[in-house]
Amino acid sequence: MTVQKPRAVCLLSGGLDSATALYVALKEGYEALALTIDYGQIHGRELKSARRIASHLAIEHRVISASLPWGGSALLDRSIPIPHGRSVAEMSQEIPVTYVPARNTIFLSLAASYAEARAAEAIFIGANALDYSGYPDCRPEFFKLFEATIQKGTRQGAEGRKLEIKTPLIDLKKSEIVRLAIGLGVPLEWTWSCYQGDQFPCGECDSCLLREKGFAEAGVRDPLTSHLTSARSAGGTVGS
Amino acid sequence: MTVQKPRAVCLLSGGLDSATALYVALKEGYEALALTIDYGQIHGRELKSARRIASHLAIEHRVISASLPWGGSALLDRSIPIPHGRSVAEMSQEIPVTYVPARNTIFLSLAASYAEARAAEAIFIGANALDYSGYPDCRPEFFKLFEATIQKGTRQGAEGRKLEIKTPLIDLKKSEIVRLAIGLGVPLEWTWSCYQGDQFPCGECDSCLLREKGFAEAGVRDPLTSHLTSARSAGGTVGS
Repeated sequence: MTVQKPRAVCLLSGGLDSATALYVALKEGYEALALTIDYGQIHGRELKSARRIASHLAIEHRVISASLPWGGSALLDRSIPIPHGRSVAEMSQEIPVTYVPARNTIFLSLAASYAEARAAEAIFIGANALDYSGYPDCRPEFFKLFEATIQKGTRQGAEGRKLEIKTPLIDLKKSEIVRLAIGLGVPLEWTWSCYQGDQFPCGECDSCLLREKGFAEAGVRDPLTSHLTSARSAGGTVGS
Repeated sequence: MTVQKPRAVCLLSGGLDSATALYVALKEGYEALALTIDYGQIHGRELKSARRIASHLAIEHRVISASLPWGGSALLDRSIPIPHGRSVAEMSQEIPVTYVPARNTIFLSLAASYAEARAAEAIFIGANALDYSGYPDCRPEFFKLFEATIQKGTRQGAEGRKLEIKTPLIDLKKSEIVRLAIGLGVPLEWTWSCYQGDQFPCGECDSCLLREKGFAEAGVRDPLTSHLTSARSAGGTVGS
């Protein structure tokens, strides 16, 4: 008898955290359906990473557009400078300008719709509450409330079936995420974290600095930067 | 001294209910920002109605795309027949196939993002829990939970500013909505309710039948159908 695997929608931005959360879902025995949202982010480069990882895993992958023309974030509006060179203490002082209004609520809503249409039982999101750059929509209480909301506002919930929001990285330090990713075989050289979205990571934005700190504390070289550095010195094309 | 009006994002599908909720917001003294979502609905005809109403009011109006390629609803997938000729009792027996997975959660998330970017204090949605065709995401408890969720998961909430979800039609019968709309001067002949999305309303889908019942119980002729009927007899083009 073939036992059907339970399904999970995995939000995959293309970054280190979302890729790791996706590999956790697979490790836990889920059939993963990856979902990537093109919301008009300046670092659209991450979409390419998401496609590459999903294609490598040969899993169902949807990339959908939901652009947010009202801006309100340095990740959407080029006239707002992306902070650079900040210490983690500085990053944590206030909600940064890279916060995108209601982004995780939008992502989870779209994931809930996909999950319901495909009879999935869980949504995986790589949110992290420790090295989290101060985003309010990365807090555990937020995810708990969202889960209760969709339980009330979907057919799935009304009919008594549960849709669980899983945040396997929520309590991990970045260095622990790096170690977990390595243990699971995440292709770290294909993940993309930089907010600037150029051919090479800027090394200066909050996201690059948190990633660098994570690898340093884990005592591991970041294969993305070493890969890019060697490609750069060889004058080759990167990441294609 | 000029007093700044409080702002509200008003979800405007182009139907009778959403148009009425928008007019309630204006009546309550809000500066209304209208938001219409093109989610791939077969009855894309309603978008034209939304544009016409917002343009008539000369208010800020965003029409954004967030298509849901996974289907799971008769409003998205032409291979699922739209029910027709049902009594209200039949409509209420179960969640109908016209339910769109997590639609109101998606709409409200996008509205919350818009509201936060534009410092709005409220979101208006024309949901209705009585003549409501059995949609789980039209229940008052769902809206309360969503409000709590965004209070926790946005900068606005984290900084102690409230974003209220207003559902002014939630407890009204369709006939009461019709009367309210007439009192507020809603251009009913421009609203569109039919799920089929042809040049003329089908008169048979749940949405047409609920609308017809509402007008009949209010003792009022529906200006949309009389307008279209006269245009049809004159051989003219309708709704342009």
